[in-house]
Amino acid sequence: MVWDSFPEIRRELDRVRTELLREVSRPGGRISEGLGDLLTRDSKLLRPAFTILAARIQNGGQAADEHIIKIAAAIEMLHAASLIHDDIIDRADKRRGGEALHVRYGDRTAVLMGDYLFAKCFSLISKYAKPESSVLISATVGHLIESEVSEYVRGPEDGWSVRSYLHRIIGKTAVLFSLSFHLGVIEASPGRADPLLVEILRRTGYNVGVGFQIVDDVLDIFGEAEITGKPSGTDLKQGVMTLPVILAAKNGRRLELSRVLNRVSRSGARRISLLKLWENRTLDEARLRIEDGGGKHGALAAAELYTRRAHRELKRLPETEERGILQAVTTQLLSRVS
Amino acid sequence: MVWDSFPEIRRELDRVRTELLREVSRPGGRISEGLGDLLTRDSKLLRPAFTILAARIQNGGQAADEHIIKIAAAIEMLHAASLIHDDIIDRADKRRGGEALHVRYGDRTAVLMGDYLFAKCFSLISKYAKPESSVLISATVGHLIESEVSEYVRGPEDGWSVRSYLHRIIGKTAVLFSLSFHLGVIEASPGRADPLLVEILRRTGYNVGVGFQIVDDVLDIFGEAEITGKPSGTDLKQGVMTLPVILAAKNGRRLELSRVLNRVSRSGARRISLLKLWENRTLDEARLRIEDGGGKHGALAAAELYTRRAHRELKRLPETEERGILQAVTTQLLSRVS
Repeated sequence: MVWDSFPEIRRELDRVRTELLREVSRPGGRISEGLGDLLTRDSKLLRPAFTILAARIQNGGQAADEHIIKIAAAIEMLHAASLIHDDIIDRADKRRGGEALHVRYGDRTAVLMGDYLFAKCFSLISKYAKPESSVLISATVGHLIESEVSEYVRGPEDGWSVRSYLHRIIGKTAVLFSLSFHLGVIEASPGRADPLLVEILRRTGYNVGVGFQIVDDVLDIFGEAEITGKPSGTDLKQGVMTLPVILAAKNGRRLELSRVLNRVSRSGARRISLLKLWENRTLDEARLRIEDGGGKHGALAAAELYTRRAHRELKRLPETEERGILQAVTTQLLSRVS
Repeated sequence: MVWDSFPEIRRELDRVRTELLREVSRPGGRISEGLGDLLTRDSKLLRPAFTILAARIQNGGQAADEHIIKIAAAIEMLHAASLIHDDIIDRADKRRGGEALHVRYGDRTAVLMGDYLFAKCFSLISKYAKPESSVLISATVGHLIESEVSEYVRGPEDGWSVRSYLHRIIGKTAVLFSLSFHLGVIEASPGRADPLLVEILRRTGYNVGVGFQIVDDVLDIFGEAEITGKPSGTDLKQGVMTLPVILAAKNGRRLELSRVLNRVSRSGARRISLLKLWENRTLDEARLRIEDGGGKHGALAAAELYTRRAHRELKRLPETEERGILQAVTTQLLSRVS
C-alpha cells in the first residue's frame, strides 16, 4: 500500500473509507452488499488522498475536517461509479482483485449501483461543497464520459497515434486527478482559493495522472495479475491501443506490428484482439515483441517524463511535509513495474 | 400534443429539440443514432416547457434567450437519461412508442447512452447555469436515483400503502417537475430569484408532478398502448403497486385483492406479476375488478385534487398569459384518461 509510510494520511483515508461505507450501507439489500464489497477491496484511494493532501497544503498541514473527508469520499464515489459502468460496457470480469459487480449481480443491478454512486457523489457535493465545486465536478463528469463515448464510437484506426492515446488517458484519468487536487484547495480555502496554488496543484494532478495511466497500461501487458487485480493482457485482447504497443509499432517493421495494425484498421472492427490478428501469438510472444520493439521502455520513459513534470510543479511550492509525501508517492507509483 | 394551442411555447420547444439533437449528434455512430431516435419520438417535453414558462413568468413574458433554452435542454437530458437506465433496470421493451434503446442496441451501449446524457446535462449546466442551479441539479439527481434504489431494494410488501406510493412518485416525478420550474425562475432572474415566486412555482411543479404521475399510472392499466406508447398493464405484470390497485385493494374484500396482496407479501419476491398471482386473470378481468373496486375512480380523484392544489398556487400569481397556459395544460394532462 502506497500510504504505508505515511500513517497520518492513512488515518485520513480510513476516515474516507468509513464515510464511503456509511453512505453505501443506506439503501440496504444487494445494492449495499455489492458496493460495500467493491469499496473495501484493496485500492490505493489516490484521488481522495490527493484531495486531502491539497487541503493540507492549503491549510498549513492541519488534519482534514469532516467536510474535506466528505468531499474526498465524493471524488472516490465518482471514480468507483465510472469503474462499475466501464466494466459493464467493456465486459471486464475482474476489478480490484475480485469479480466485477456486473458479473456477480447482473447488468441491471450494476447499472443502478453505478447510478447510485454518481447520485451520492452529487448529493454530498451539493450538501457540503462550495457551489464552485459543484460546477467543477459537473464539468469533469461531462469530460470523463464524453471521452469514454468518443473512445467507444471511434474505430481502432484512430487509436494508433501517440496523440490520440494521450487524449484518451487525459480524459479518462488526468482530468479527475487534476480535479481531486483542485477541490482540496477550494474547499480548504476560507475565501477564494489562491489561483497560483490551484494552478500548481492542477498541473501536478494532470501530469501525475498521465504518468499513472501510462504505467497502468504497461502493467496491463507486463504486470502480474496478482498485483494488478486484473488478468494480464486485457487491453491487447480487447484491441485497446496503449502506449507500449503504439511505440513498438512505430519502432520497427521487424515487429510486423504495422502490418497487423493495418489489418485491424482495414477490418473496421471496433474491438478486435491484437493477439488473434497477430497470427495468434500468445501473450508471452506478444510481450517479447513489444519489449523488443522498445514499447515497454519507451512507455516507461514517457511516464517518467510526466512524473518529472509533476515534480517540477511541486518544487514551486514551499517545502512542506505534504510536498514530500506527494513526491515520494508519485515516484513510488512509477516504480510499480518490475 | 398538449402544446398545439400555444404556438409560442411550441416554437420554444422546437428550439429545445434542436439543441438536444445538436448535442447528441456530436459523438456520432450508434450513440448519436440511438439518442437522436429517442429524442425525436413523440414526447410532451413537459419539463423543458415548465422551465421556459417559469422563465417567462419571471421576465414578464419575453421569449426565452439562448441560455434558458440550454437549461431547458439539460433538464430534458436528465429525464431522458433516467428513462434509458430505468428501461434497462426494469426490462421495459417499449418507450415513447418505439423500442427501448437497450432492446435495439444492447445493455452496454444503452448504459453509455444514459451516462452520456447525464454528462451532457451536467456540462451544459456547469457552462451556462448559475452555480446555484448546479447545486440544485446535483441534489435532485441524488434524490431521483435514491428513490429508484429504495424502490428496487424494498420488497413489494412496502408498496401497499398510499403513503409509500406517494413517496415513490414524488421522488420519481414531482421532484424533477418542481426543479424544472425552479431553474426557470433562477436563470431568468438578473440577481437573486424572488423567494415567493420560487415557492409558488416549486409547489406548482410538485403538485402537477404528483397528479401527472397518478394519471400515468392509471393509463398504464386502462390506457390504450397507441396513446401511451407502452404496452398496457406493464405495472401489473411487473408487480409495481400503483394507486388504482392500492385503492381497489383497500375498498373491498369482494375483490379478493387483499388476499392476493398477502400472498405477494409472504412470497417475498421483489417483482411478481399481479395477474399471475391473481389466479391468472387476464388484463381485462383485472381492469374490471380494479374499476369495480373504485381504484380507477379513486386514483383520478386524487390526481384531480393535486391538480387543483397546483391551480390554487398558480392563482397566487398575477394573471398572465403564462399562468393561463399552465392552467390549461395541467387540466389537459388530467383528462388524458377517457
